[in-house]
Amino acid sequence: MSRGTGRFRELWDEIAPIGRDAGSGGYLRYALTAPELRLREWFRAQADLRGMPVSGDGNGNLFAWWGDPDSGGPAGVGAVLTGSHFDSVPHGGAYDGPLGIVSAFLAVDELRAAGVTPVRPVVVAAFVEEEGARFGVPCLGSRLLTGEIDADRAAGLRDAAGVSFAEALGQRPAGADPALLGRFAAFVELHVEQGRALVDADAPVAVASAIWPHGRWRFELRGEGNHAGTTRMADRRDPMLTFAFTVLAANKEARLRDAHATVARVAVEPNATNAIPSTVTGWLDARAAAPETLDGLVEAVRAKAAERARRDGTELTVTRESATPLVTFDGGLADRLAGLLAAPVLPTGAGHDAGVLAAHLPTAMLFVRNPTGVSHSPAESATDADCAAGVVALARVLEELACH
Amino acid sequence: MSRGTGRFRELWDEIAPIGRDAGSGGYLRYALTAPELRLREWFRAQADLRGMPVSGDGNGNLFAWWGDPDSGGPAGVGAVLTGSHFDSVPHGGAYDGPLGIVSAFLAVDELRAAGVTPVRPVVVAAFVEEEGARFGVPCLGSRLLTGEIDADRAAGLRDAAGVSFAEALGQRPAGADPALLGRFAAFVELHVEQGRALVDADAPVAVASAIWPHGRWRFELRGEGNHAGTTRMADRRDPMLTFAFTVLAANKEARLRDAHATVARVAVEPNATNAIPSTVTGWLDARAAAPETLDGLVEAVRAKAAERARRDGTELTVTRESATPLVTFDGGLADRLAGLLAAPVLPTGAGHDAGVLAAHLPTAMLFVRNPTGVSHSPAESATDADCAAGVVALARVLEELACH
Repeated sequence: MSRGTGRFRELWDEIAPIGRDAGSGGYLRYALTAPELRLREWFRAQADLRGMPVSGDGNGNLFAWWGDPDSGGPAGVGAVLTGSHFDSVPHGGAYDGPLGIVSAFLAVDELRAAGVTPVRPVVVAAFVEEEGARFGVPCLGSRLLTGEIDADRAAGLRDAAGVSFAEALGQRPAGADPALLGRFAAFVELHVEQGRALVDADAPVAVASAIWPHGRWRFELRGEGNHAGTTRMADRRDPMLTFAFTVLAANKEARLRDAHATVARVAVEPNATNAIPSTVTGWLDARAAAPETLDGLVEAVRAKAAERARRDGTELTVTRESATPLVTFDGGLADRLAGLLAAPVLPTGAGHDAGVLAAHLPTAMLFVRNPTGVSHSPAESATDADCAAGVVALARVLEELACH
Repeated sequence: MSRGTGRFRELWDEIAPIGRDAGSGGYLRYALTAPELRLREWFRAQADLRGMPVSGDGNGNLFAWWGDPDSGGPAGVGAVLTGSHFDSVPHGGAYDGPLGIVSAFLAVDELRAAGVTPVRPVVVAAFVEEEGARFGVPCLGSRLLTGEIDADRAAGLRDAAGVSFAEALGQRPAGADPALLGRFAAFVELHVEQGRALVDADAPVAVASAIWPHGRWRFELRGEGNHAGTTRMADRRDPMLTFAFTVLAANKEARLRDAHATVARVAVEPNATNAIPSTVTGWLDARAAAPETLDGLVEAVRAKAAERARRDGTELTVTRESATPLVTFDGGLADRLAGLLAAPVLPTGAGHDAGVLAAHLPTAMLFVRNPTGVSHSPAESATDADCAAGVVALARVLEELACH
């Protein structure tokens, strides 16, 4: 084991048990719940160990500063921001989020051990509610900081138990903070890869080129609740049939376009074995390389669902719940980092806080190889050697950006 | 309004608000929860008003006796049992269950007003957990009384909150009671119709011929949890696709056989918009006129699901959760009652406590017309005039059975 690999494993072991479900082996680290609050305490302790003062933004995001927080901003040199998030999807993987934060602290250690003295502050961030798994809006923390979501709307978002984001946060979120944002000259987020491209490329680390445009559409199907045992097939208005057809149509339409479409969440009323549902609601997650491909995909699924609804005697309402446009990361920056690291450049279908911040400051992402290609699942993985290579790559990037 | 219609409405209004959900207009009367306990108190009060002593069987079933409880049994003349259940499916209709109990008390009133003096006791029953909506086993009360379910197994059944049936009941269920069962010479259950046959026949009341064989099968589909945004379509093992195909196959196979198949309940892990599910479980409710038709239907759905699972790279496990054989009600009794009432004779696809008791004593059912044909839904209905006609029919049947 190399020294870097050992250091990675040592720090990683500190957080690996936090929020892990013994049954699935996956993580339940919802934003501002006990496991995520423990991780935030760990973040403060790590910053403290390194003499990095921690500041918040009133939105739930944390920032640990190596260098004078007041040296950035219009009057000074901008800081270099790195980091990621702690929260997980239900029974998610270990790496999605926390790897970017652990790697950021280790990269600071690398730079210090090498005697590097940055001219810009280096700031490690932990963003809140990146997955949207608790309050329904992904990248909530970065959207608040950048003003992409209204603070009042965010305050009123509620989790499944009815707790509002403001209640969980302990205050009304502060919302956009252009002054804080103005102190950052660049953002680099390191993240585990959520596909197999680095396995195919035989490389441990890549630089991101773009995030596909993507969104969530709610398909609400209303039929007629009735007795499953006694209602003749011909008399039914069963929304589960329309739902099932829509699931298969989404899959087919995505394959035809080299796009991604998934129906992974469903709510059934009343969801009883012997009662034909009155309502079935499915959520379509759709992504494609180009916006016009995405529009065509969603329209095709909607049209097929509507046609089937007419046959089933059900009613369809489609609501766009969220939409994220194509994010093209700063091309000059990506090329510069790819050259520096001799790393491949890849697009991704996943949204990230980096995608939100990219509209406000030069932003880049690094991906670390994932042997299974699996993410949002306990099977998500990365070798310690690749994680250590990620730390080295991130340290080189931070040195490149913070020393000039 | 006729006198009978007025008396029906008056008694019906006493229970109509109990357990009604203001949002859906449907009923949430789960067994041994507050609304159902209120209805049981109402049952005791009604029995008391009529001077009918109430006994239990230690299983949660209640019996109100017009006549000497000790006159039945091997040494005496058997009693005539009538009644139904109070519990509902989630957001169920008003009539499914309670109509049979309200009608039973009103039929006793009719007979007394007419000066009828039965030679056999007439007993009004309220059976517990007929729908299986709380503890998962339909007709739990009648199955316990008849010994068709083991008392220990029933004791350990748990609701969604983890409360066991024994805890809800306040005691370990007593189980089979052949001595009590032996006191009954016949059972007649009046029930709202759960289809449109009486609308088509232009008649207010029918007599049941049979209950179709039926059952519940759990289809558990395991795939690979993964990120919905980044996983290539070709790399997925998505159990939602297999589920959707199975839903459509069940519908098609049932139509081909003039049978009924429904997938109305589904559980998805983790049920998050952006995570391809690791597991999707669907419950198949299947019913047919003949056992061999039912077997063929379930086998065809299983085979199609298995074939699709191979294509999707998912794994299928099918578990039979319950199965109820064909119930043919006492043919002589049904013909006798149909003649008495000049009523049509119909089969039904729905299970009832009468279906359980039919294996142990001569049993009949009366159905009251339902204009919508809808059941297990707030849209379930019956006119007051038809309900009053049901009371008259039940009174004639009780007189016929209890005076000879």
